[in-house]
Amino acid sequence: MSSSFQTIKPSVRIDDPFWTPYTALIRDKVIPYQWKALNDQIPDAAPSYAIRNFRIAAGLEEGEFGGMVFQDSDPAKWLEAVGYSLAAHPDPELEELADGLIDLIVAAQQPDGYLNTYFTIKEPGLRWTNLHECHELYCAGHMMEAAVAYYEATGKRKLLDAMCRFADYIDSVFGTEPGKLPGYDGHQEIELALVKLYEATGEERYLRLSQYFIDQRGQAPDYFVEEWERRGQTSYWRQGKVPSPSAAYNQSHLPVREQSVAVGHAVRAVYMYAAMADLALLKQDNELLEACRRLWSNITTRQMYVTGGIGSTHHGEAFSFDYDLPNDTVYAETCASIGLIFFARRMLQMEQKSDYADVMERALYNLVLGSMSLDGTRYFYVNPLEVWPEACEKNPGKHHVKPERQKWFGCSCCPPNVARLIASLGDYIYSTHGSKLFVHLFIGGEAELVVEQETVGIQQQSALPWNGNVGFRLRLQRPKRFTLALRVPAWCSGEALLSINGEVCTDSIRIVNGYAEIDRIWTDSDQIEWTLPVRAQWVEGHPSIRALAGKAAIQRGPLVYCLEELDNGAPLSSLTLASGSGLTETFDPQLFGGVYVIEGEAARDDAGSWSEEPYRPLQLESRPAAFRAVPYFLWGNRGRGEMSVWNRVQ
Amino acid sequence: MSSSFQTIKPSVRIDDPFWTPYTALIRDKVIPYQWKALNDQIPDAAPSYAIRNFRIAAGLEEGEFGGMVFQDSDPAKWLEAVGYSLAAHPDPELEELADGLIDLIVAAQQPDGYLNTYFTIKEPGLRWTNLHECHELYCAGHMMEAAVAYYEATGKRKLLDAMCRFADYIDSVFGTEPGKLPGYDGHQEIELALVKLYEATGEERYLRLSQYFIDQRGQAPDYFVEEWERRGQTSYWRQGKVPSPSAAYNQSHLPVREQSVAVGHAVRAVYMYAAMADLALLKQDNELLEACRRLWSNITTRQMYVTGGIGSTHHGEAFSFDYDLPNDTVYAETCASIGLIFFARRMLQMEQKSDYADVMERALYNLVLGSMSLDGTRYFYVNPLEVWPEACEKNPGKHHVKPERQKWFGCSCCPPNVARLIASLGDYIYSTHGSKLFVHLFIGGEAELVVEQETVGIQQQSALPWNGNVGFRLRLQRPKRFTLALRVPAWCSGEALLSINGEVCTDSIRIVNGYAEIDRIWTDSDQIEWTLPVRAQWVEGHPSIRALAGKAAIQRGPLVYCLEELDNGAPLSSLTLASGSGLTETFDPQLFGGVYVIEGEAARDDAGSWSEEPYRPLQLESRPAAFRAVPYFLWGNRGRGEMSVWNRVQ
Repeated sequence: MSSSFQTIKPSVRIDDPFWTPYTALIRDKVIPYQWKALNDQIPDAAPSYAIRNFRIAAGLEEGEFGGMVFQDSDPAKWLEAVGYSLAAHPDPELEELADGLIDLIVAAQQPDGYLNTYFTIKEPGLRWTNLHECHELYCAGHMMEAAVAYYEATGKRKLLDAMCRFADYIDSVFGTEPGKLPGYDGHQEIELALVKLYEATGEERYLRLSQYFIDQRGQAPDYFVEEWERRGQTSYWRQGKVPSPSAAYNQSHLPVREQSVAVGHAVRAVYMYAAMADLALLKQDNELLEACRRLWSNITTRQMYVTGGIGSTHHGEAFSFDYDLPNDTVYAETCASIGLIFFARRMLQMEQKSDYADVMERALYNLVLGSMSLDGTRYFYVNPLEVWPEACEKNPGKHHVKPERQKWFGCSCCPPNVARLIASLGDYIYSTHGSKLFVHLFIGGEAELVVEQETVGIQQQSALPWNGNVGFRLRLQRPKRFTLALRVPAWCSGEALLSINGEVCTDSIRIVNGYAEIDRIWTDSDQIEWTLPVRAQWVEGHPSIRALAGKAAIQRGPLVYCLEELDNGAPLSSLTLASGSGLTETFDPQLFGGVYVIEGEAARDDAGSWSEEPYRPLQLESRPAAFRAVPYFLWGNRGRGEMSVWNRVQ
Repeated sequence: MSSSFQTIKPSVRIDDPFWTPYTALIRDKVIPYQWKALNDQIPDAAPSYAIRNFRIAAGLEEGEFGGMVFQDSDPAKWLEAVGYSLAAHPDPELEELADGLIDLIVAAQQPDGYLNTYFTIKEPGLRWTNLHECHELYCAGHMMEAAVAYYEATGKRKLLDAMCRFADYIDSVFGTEPGKLPGYDGHQEIELALVKLYEATGEERYLRLSQYFIDQRGQAPDYFVEEWERRGQTSYWRQGKVPSPSAAYNQSHLPVREQSVAVGHAVRAVYMYAAMADLALLKQDNELLEACRRLWSNITTRQMYVTGGIGSTHHGEAFSFDYDLPNDTVYAETCASIGLIFFARRMLQMEQKSDYADVMERALYNLVLGSMSLDGTRYFYVNPLEVWPEACEKNPGKHHVKPERQKWFGCSCCPPNVARLIASLGDYIYSTHGSKLFVHLFIGGEAELVVEQETVGIQQQSALPWNGNVGFRLRLQRPKRFTLALRVPAWCSGEALLSINGEVCTDSIRIVNGYAEIDRIWTDSDQIEWTLPVRAQWVEGHPSIRALAGKAAIQRGPLVYCLEELDNGAPLSSLTLASGSGLTETFDPQLFGGVYVIEGEAARDDAGSWSEEPYRPLQLESRPAAFRAVPYFLWGNRGRGEMSVWNRVQ
C-alpha cells in the first residue's frame, strides 16, 4: 500500500479520436436527452417523475410521488455528470440549467437538512424506518457525489453546503452511541460519497461516518431483521407480511472485513467495495485492504464475464457463485460494471498492479460502451453475451434480456451512471505515487500531474482501441528524475515496444506489477513511443466455466468481438469457427465510421438435409462458411438479430 | 381415421423381466408409500393433508383445509392407480383400504353431488366462482377417472355412482343454455375423464358434457376474464387486485379447433389434447382430428426433449416456443410427459402410425421411469437433461431443478401420476382395428384381444430395452386370417428381422406407417420372432435447437443415455466425446441389477495448465480420456453429481 494518500484525480483534458466523440456525445446528446427523460419529455418512454418529485417536495407543484423510491438518485447522477462535463467543457447554458435544478433540490430540503422526495411527499413521519428497502442514504450519497462534482467544476458551494447539512444531520442520527440508530443503508452508496465529501471539505466527521457505515454493516444483531420486526414484518414492495430480509443480498451477512466472496446484489457489492478501498487507503487499514483484495480476486477471476460484466443472475440482480457465467440468462447490469470500475480505480490508488487497470479497461471498452447506443439515446440495463431475440420474448426466463437497447427504464439507474462515468473519464487514466507517474489507460489528451511536489505535463496520443500506437510528450519546467510507468495490457499478444526520443529502448525498462517502469531524468519535450501489439486473438475460458466449454471468443486489443446474425445468418449456434485458419483483420471505414472487423473460416452445420424430425442419428454434416465478427460494444446498432460472443471453435 | 370405435383396452397381464419389477414396485412400494404420504406419515417430507381434508369435509375431524387447492386430486390418482393394480393383481387388504377411502370420499360428497374438500371446508358459498384458478372440475375429473378404474377392477359401483351424481350435477350447472354457467375449468382434466365415465356407463350426456367443455373453451367473450371481473379482479393465489388472466396459459386463447401450436401450461395442454383425440374418434370429428394432428406435430417435432420431456420453461410450467429446449433451465414436468403418453395412445386409436408409439415409448422409458427412484420412494417433478448441482442451489434461475429426487412435494401431482400410468401399462401395448392387431410396445405378458369379433390370445416375450429379441406366440380357437402389425421402432439402427415358426420372412411383410404388417392365416401356437437391432448410436438435434449445437446424445434401443459425474469426473462439460471411435456396449451385471453401459473415447479439456485467470489465449489443450454413459432413467441413483445427456462431440 502506498504510504501516503494522494488524490488520483489529476487535471486531464481528453483529446482522443476514439473517446472525444463519446465525451462530446455525453455533453451534446446524452445530458440533454437525460434531462428530458428526467422531465418526462421522451415520447413512448417510461416516465421518470424525478424532477416533478422535487417540485412537489419543494411545494412548487401539487401531486403524488412518482417512480421508484430511489428516483432522487437519477437527477443526482445527472447533476454529477453535468459537473464533470462542465469541468472539461464550460457551458453557461447547461450550468444555468444545473443551477436551477440545484435551487429546486435545495428548496426541497427540509429545515433539519433531510432530503428525500419520497418520504417528504408520501411518508413524512416514517424517515429511517425502512433502511433496508427505501434507499434514503443511497439517494443521499448520490446527491453528495453530485454536490462534490459540481463544486469541483464550478466552485459553487450551494449544493455542497446543503449536502454538508444533510451529512451533519445523518451523522446526528446514525451511530452506535445511545439514542442513535445503529443502522446502515440497504443499498450501499453513501459510504463512498462521504469519502468524497470529506475530500472536498476536509471534514473528518464525514470520513468517520463512512467508516461507521462500513464497519457497522453485518454486525450482530442484524439491524435489518430488527427493523423489519419493528415495521411489523412488512415490506415496501409487497402487501402483507414478508419473510425476514436476506442479509447476503445487501452484503450484511458478515462484517465486511470478514467477507471473501462476492455475493448478493452486484451494484450494492461493488459500491461498498469501492468505499472499503477508499477507507483502506485513507486510514491505512490493512485488514480492509486484505478484504478488498480477496473480494476483487473472487470477482475478477471467478465471477466476471469476458466483457467485464458482473452479477450473472437477474434474480436479485446478483452474483450467483464461482464460475457460474451463463451467456444467455446473464444479467451483467451496466451499473455493476461501472461500480467495478470505481472499485478498480481505488485499488489502483493503493497498489499499482496492472490487473486492476486491465479489468477497468475491459469493463469500460466492452460493457459500459456497449450499454449505450451509438447515438446516446438508448441503453441496455442487462448486457447479454448471447441473444436469441425470439427467446427474449417467448421464454420468460430470458424476459429480462432485451435484444434491443431501450429508450429509458422505470428503474433508470444505468443511463445516468454511464453519463457520469464517461464525463469523468479523465480521472481514470493517470495516477502518481511517490516518484512514479502511472499511465493506466491509453486515452489521448493533456494532463497535469504532480510528482513529488512538481508539476509534470503529459500529452498523450493514442490510436487505441484500433491500433497500438501510443505516444507521450512531456512538459517539464526543468529536468526531473522520476519513473514513468506504462501499463503493459494483459491483451498484448506480443512484446510492447518502447522508444524514447526516437531511440528504441530495451535495457532501461523493467516490468513491475504489469507496468513498464522507466526511471530516468526526463527533460521537457521528451517523446515516448509505446507501441502495443494489437492483434486479433482467440480467447478461451476457464474449464470450470461450464457455459464456455468448447467455445472461444475473439479479442483484439481491449475489444471483445461478437458475431451478429446480420453478418453471419441464424442460428449463430450452427457455426464452428476454425481456430487454425487465422483471423483476418480489416479496417472497414464504412462501418460505424470506421472499425476493424475480423473475419475467418468456419463450418456451418448443414440444416438443408434435415426434414421435420427433431433428432436423428449423428451425421456431423457441415459445409464451409466464413464468419465476420464486429466489436461487441457496437452490437445491436444495425437492427435486431442474434448475437454471440462465445462461439464453438475447433 | 378408423371408421369404427373400438376400445384400445384389451385384457393384458404384464410378465416381463424389465417391467414386472416396476409394476411390482408400484404395487408393493409406491402405492403403500404414497398412501403414507397422503396421510402425512412420511418423516421430513412436505405434508399432503389430502386425506385429512376429506375427513374434515366429511365431518369426521375438525381442522383447516391443508395443501394445494387441488389436493383432492392426489388421493384420486392414488385410487386410480390402486384400481389398475387390483385389476392385474387382486389384493384384498389393499382393496379394503381403498374401500375405506371411497367411503370417506362419498361421506364428503354434498347432498347435491358436489365434491371438493377445499370449497366444502373453506369457501362453501363460493363454488364455481373461480374456475380459472381453483381446479374444482379438475379434481372432479380425477375422481371420475379413479371411479372408472376402480369399478373396472372390482365391479364396485359406489364411487362410480357417486361420480355420476357429481357429473349429473356438473351437467346441470354448466352449458350455454340460459341459467347455466358458460364456463370450463382453468385446468383441463374433466374432459377426458367424462369420456371415460361415458365409456364405463354408456351415458351419452357425459360425452356431450365433455364436448361442451372442449368446444366452449376459447370462445368469445373470455369466460375467465369475465369471471375475474365478477370476482373484483382478485386471485386465489395473491392478495389484492391482479392483472387479467392469460388465456394462452390454459389454452383458452383460441377455440381448440383453431389451435396449431402447443402453448401454455404443458400438463393442461396435453390433458386437453387427449380429450380432443377421444372426441375426434368417438364423434368422428375430422376437424378435431386435424387440430390434434397439428398440435401433436408441433409438440413432437419442435417442443419435445430427446427424453420425451415437454414444457421447457418453469415459468408457468409451460411450453415456450419452437426449438427452445434448454437442457439446464428445463422444466419437463413428469405429469406433462404422462399426459403426452395419454395423447399418443388416443392418437393411435385413430391412426396407427408408429410415430405416436415411438414418442410414447420415448417418454415412458426415459422421462417417466427416470422420474422415480429405483426404490419407488423419491421423485423428480422437473426432469433435467443437464445438472450442475451447485447451480441448482446457488443460481435462482435453476432452483426449480433438483439434483436429487425428492420424497414428496407440496404440489405432488407427479408421483401418483407415475403410479397410475405404470399400473395401467397394459393398456398401451396393443390395439386392434378392423382385421389388424397392432403391437405398439414390446413388453412381455399375456393378452387377449378381439379381432373382428374373435378372440386372439397373444403371448409376448421381450428382452427390451436391453436386447432386441421379441417373440410372440398366438392362441387361437381356430385358424384365422388377420394382419399382425409390429411396430418398427424409429430407433432401429438396421433392419428388423422377422421369422415365423422358425422360418425367416422377407417377402410377406410390408411396412405401413411404420408397422410391419403380416397378413396371413394364423393358426394356434404360431410363433413369431421379431428381432430388433438394439445398438448404441449417436444422436444429434435439429440445428434450430440452439442448445444442442455441437452436441450429441447417445441412444441404445429406446433408452437415452447420459454421463454422470461419478463415472466421468467434473465438470462434464470438459469432455468432448469422439464420435469416430466407436461405442462399446457392455452388460454390467453389478450395476442396478444389470444394465448395458456404453463407453467410448473422449478428450478432456486440460484444466491442469490453468492458473487463476478466467480467460486466456486459446490453447485448445486436451488429453485423451474415456467416457462411460449409463441409461438416463437410472441417473441420480448413485448419489449426487453432475449429469448431462447432450455432450460435446467431434
